[in-house]
Amino acid sequence: MDECIFCKIIKGTIPVAKIYEDDEILAFLDIKPVNHGHALVIPKKHYEKMESAPDEVVADVFIGAKKLMGVIKEAVSADFVVLSVVGIDVPHFHVHLIPRYFNDKMPVFWPRKEYKEGEKEIVAEKIKKFL
Amino acid sequence: MDECIFCKIIKGTIPVAKIYEDDEILAFLDIKPVNHGHALVIPKKHYEKMESAPDEVVADVFIGAKKLMGVIKEAVSADFVVLSVVGIDVPHFHVHLIPRYFNDKMPVFWPRKEYKEGEKEIVAEKIKKFL
Repeated sequence: MDECIFCKIIKGTIPVAKIYEDDEILAFLDIKPVNHGHALVIPKKHYEKMESAPDEVVADVFIGAKKLMGVIKEAVSADFVVLSVVGIDVPHFHVHLIPRYFNDKMPVFWPRKEYKEGEKEIVAEKIKKFL
Repeated sequence: MDECIFCKIIKGTIPVAKIYEDDEILAFLDIKPVNHGHALVIPKKHYEKMESAPDEVVADVFIGAKKLMGVIKEAVSADFVVLSVVGIDVPHFHVHLIPRYFNDKMPVFWPRKEYKEGEKEIVAEKIKKFL
């Protein structure tokens, strides 16, 4: 993908602060971090989204992310590390690893709703129809 | 794990709205959804955190999550689905799949910081020491 910024990073035409690299994946620091040490893990082959990546690529990326979570947590003395795939930012499948601190004054999650009686069973049935 | 709420769900002693199950993983609707259709994907074996799960379990969970992302998106007509592992809520490794809408009035991400000149290279070196 000639136009893809992450493919350019893999090729080395855009410099980044790499933290890990093997034949399948690359991990580097996000230039606009939520907290310092915020990293991205990407497959070296271009897949627009997680949904379009083959199973073995998904496995490689998340097994790599698992190893890096603990490493980042320790290196920047984070209280925890959030893993996130958003899917509407850069169109090259990537996983965010975000070091977080209990006192970093950012929400951990989003506000939660409730289901009315019987409503979640209806939603579950609807989802199962698409399986 | 006798005390673990997710292990009880797997055993069937706590009822949930299941959307998918195989020998390795279970997926069901979160009872307090960020949006309707918000699901959790968990391994059937108990691992406290993603970091403590073996590579093959990590692969099974995320390959399952990948399949379910598209299914949930379609079933609830979401604009996108966010995948998230937080690691400080229920102590049984689980992946959130959260259907999102461009007009759902919740932030997609957290505020971002900047690195000073040369700072991210220092952070990257620190992380690499822990690899």
